[in-house]
Amino acid sequence: MNAEIICIGTELLLGNIVNTDATDVAQTLSEMGISVYRYTAVGDNPERLAEVVQAAARRADLLITTGGLGPTLDDLSKQTVAAAFGKKLVRHPECEADIRTYFERLHRPMTPNNLLQAMLPEGCTVLKNDWGTAPGCVFDAEGVKVIMLPGPPRECRAMLRYRVAPYLKGLSGQTIHSRYVHIFGMGESQVESLLHDLMEQSSNPTVAPYAKEGEVMLRITAAASSQAEAETMIEPVAAQIRTVLGPLIYTEEYDSLEQTCLNLLRQADKTLATAESCTGGYIAKRMTDLPGSSAVFVGGVVAYTVPVKEQLLGVPAGLIERCGVVSVEVAAAMAEGVRARLGSSFGIGVTGLAGPDGDGSNRPVGLVYVALSNGANTWVRAIQQTGERERVRYIAGHHAFDMLRRVLTGLPVEWQ
Amino acid sequence: MNAEIICIGTELLLGNIVNTDATDVAQTLSEMGISVYRYTAVGDNPERLAEVVQAAARRADLLITTGGLGPTLDDLSKQTVAAAFGKKLVRHPECEADIRTYFERLHRPMTPNNLLQAMLPEGCTVLKNDWGTAPGCVFDAEGVKVIMLPGPPRECRAMLRYRVAPYLKGLSGQTIHSRYVHIFGMGESQVESLLHDLMEQSSNPTVAPYAKEGEVMLRITAAASSQAEAETMIEPVAAQIRTVLGPLIYTEEYDSLEQTCLNLLRQADKTLATAESCTGGYIAKRMTDLPGSSAVFVGGVVAYTVPVKEQLLGVPAGLIERCGVVSVEVAAAMAEGVRARLGSSFGIGVTGLAGPDGDGSNRPVGLVYVALSNGANTWVRAIQQTGERERVRYIAGHHAFDMLRRVLTGLPVEWQ
Repeated sequence: MNAEIICIGTELLLGNIVNTDATDVAQTLSEMGISVYRYTAVGDNPERLAEVVQAAARRADLLITTGGLGPTLDDLSKQTVAAAFGKKLVRHPECEADIRTYFERLHRPMTPNNLLQAMLPEGCTVLKNDWGTAPGCVFDAEGVKVIMLPGPPRECRAMLRYRVAPYLKGLSGQTIHSRYVHIFGMGESQVESLLHDLMEQSSNPTVAPYAKEGEVMLRITAAASSQAEAETMIEPVAAQIRTVLGPLIYTEEYDSLEQTCLNLLRQADKTLATAESCTGGYIAKRMTDLPGSSAVFVGGVVAYTVPVKEQLLGVPAGLIERCGVVSVEVAAAMAEGVRARLGSSFGIGVTGLAGPDGDGSNRPVGLVYVALSNGANTWVRAIQQTGERERVRYIAGHHAFDMLRRVLTGLPVEWQ
Repeated sequence: MNAEIICIGTELLLGNIVNTDATDVAQTLSEMGISVYRYTAVGDNPERLAEVVQAAARRADLLITTGGLGPTLDDLSKQTVAAAFGKKLVRHPECEADIRTYFERLHRPMTPNNLLQAMLPEGCTVLKNDWGTAPGCVFDAEGVKVIMLPGPPRECRAMLRYRVAPYLKGLSGQTIHSRYVHIFGMGESQVESLLHDLMEQSSNPTVAPYAKEGEVMLRITAAASSQAEAETMIEPVAAQIRTVLGPLIYTEEYDSLEQTCLNLLRQADKTLATAESCTGGYIAKRMTDLPGSSAVFVGGVVAYTVPVKEQLLGVPAGLIERCGVVSVEVAAAMAEGVRARLGSSFGIGVTGLAGPDGDGSNRPVGLVYVALSNGANTWVRAIQQTGERERVRYIAGHHAFDMLRRVLTGLPVEWQ
């Protein structure tokens, strides 16, 4: 079975929003072993939309559309998609009732155009939307299955998980299963150079590299009759990769670096506190993005000024004047200070120049000191990054988490 | 002039990465008045890629590709695109030199496959990449302009700004200019209902709504011979919208809510500190995302446990026991406490249940109290959100910033 995704909305073509729907649909289909050969974004223009839909229907067995189900004037797309398959829109009274209930529950006024969302193609199966007002639907036409989903990312994601995935299970025969080997501390081309033969010779399982911001992910994918069989095929390949990359691999689960740290802290029954200057709460934010982080994360201090560093973190008066705010010594004092004051097992301290401007000293923009303290020891890494503020801050967080997971797994903190 | 964007990479079709390149290219083109009628994502499959490129070349005057320039084995796409226009790849010695310099500067080992990136279509103009190793290029073929850009988002974005935009200026005749009216506190369909006539009758300028997470943006776009003329056409429409939506409009610049707060704080010469429980540093992170935030942002405390709230924020002992951690009283005490301890003009305090799990009390998941204190007064909003942890945390931040900008502009903090 092969699928195409069509994302509808002029705002996509104007670059006003990022197309996370396409990614979410693609991921869902990929996990079910359904191949996606292309996806297309098209505006709220009936003629061009019809053209895209008709061309995709000639190539694919399954068509998933996102967007164009909303109540605004520029969302005329539902009609166009239905018409491309010779279908009319008809009123679905049960959807009307759901829409009314949704607004009552949120105590929000409902406007008449909200009820337009209850108009769906004749003969379709309604996909109930418990996360917004526009229901989705599935219908069969001319040998193609068409699934229409709402555009707002949160709704689209929930519909995929609770409506589309259950529906598609059973339609797909073979299991395609992947393992993700996550690597921090080496660039994509160097990883590929080390694993060149393995990757070039791979067929089933295949090995493919993906560069993510600041890290590399290797995806090992096997096609088999069951997940267990796929896992058996994947393991020897993973073992070969481990031999080459060893301590650079931080997990083989589908987990982020911070999730890996959370898991390790839980297992070790340890806690963490953060003291952030240039990262400004980003590391605490990443840790608290994770459900269950309250079990290991005590809290943190965002110390954006010298008095806050001294007063809340106990950085000794004079140290900043002597060594500079951006220094090994201050990073270490911040890590130790927050650990001691908040009573956690580990403390992270970060100070640096995220840019775009420097601090008037001769320290280069992009220089960040990341410190980790466990009371007995304090380690500091000096990192020099190129690129934008967001990237400098993000990568600094990566280093903090990498140092933590190394200490928690008994690896040396030195990374190069 | 009309353009199509082709994003190349199997990782897009597997849903491993979000296609921010398409958004960035679309935004750049839109700002230059170049229409984008569709964009397509396709994998590293020569046959399907050739098909997509040829079809797009028949429809568009300008083709921009992203991705497929990298050094890994699965990036064979450059050849395919060149071949679709009857071009061979040839070695560009000046690119080779740039690639060598790049690795030397970062003190990273260069591998032979990195040099493959110096192979570009014959007769092309090279677009130098100062942010990575793969150069881009422009060439003309069969009446179509083709621009090839690297896939990594950071590189693509920089190339658009510093290479593509300057090149495209001059190719486009008419100026298309937009103003963005940002609204917080009302849903998209309600906004559209209030402005129905204005939007339906609009032609030049046009008015179109965009729902963003937790807010609505109205884009007023005029086509004219100059930006000044476009602005003159836009202003009366903006004035009409102001009459209807008044205090819900937080800015008419292309600024976020937090950037608006930063600007207002600077103008008023005031400072801010944050005390966050459930948002876990997210509000501080959003404030410090902004260059120049150190002029107004003092710092913050992420108080994820009761002792941290009492010790670092001075929340009175017994208050939490009496009122519960998630309460109006604790939010207010956090805002007041952080303001007093960090010596800022304003303090923000946030406590709530971000989910997915509750806290064992009868308080519902998604309930958040957001407090703002200026010493003389403390205001608290109770917000009940549906949806995921990320959304609950994000919207709580929106409310904190909305309260702050209302106080700073002399508006009532009450929002409904």
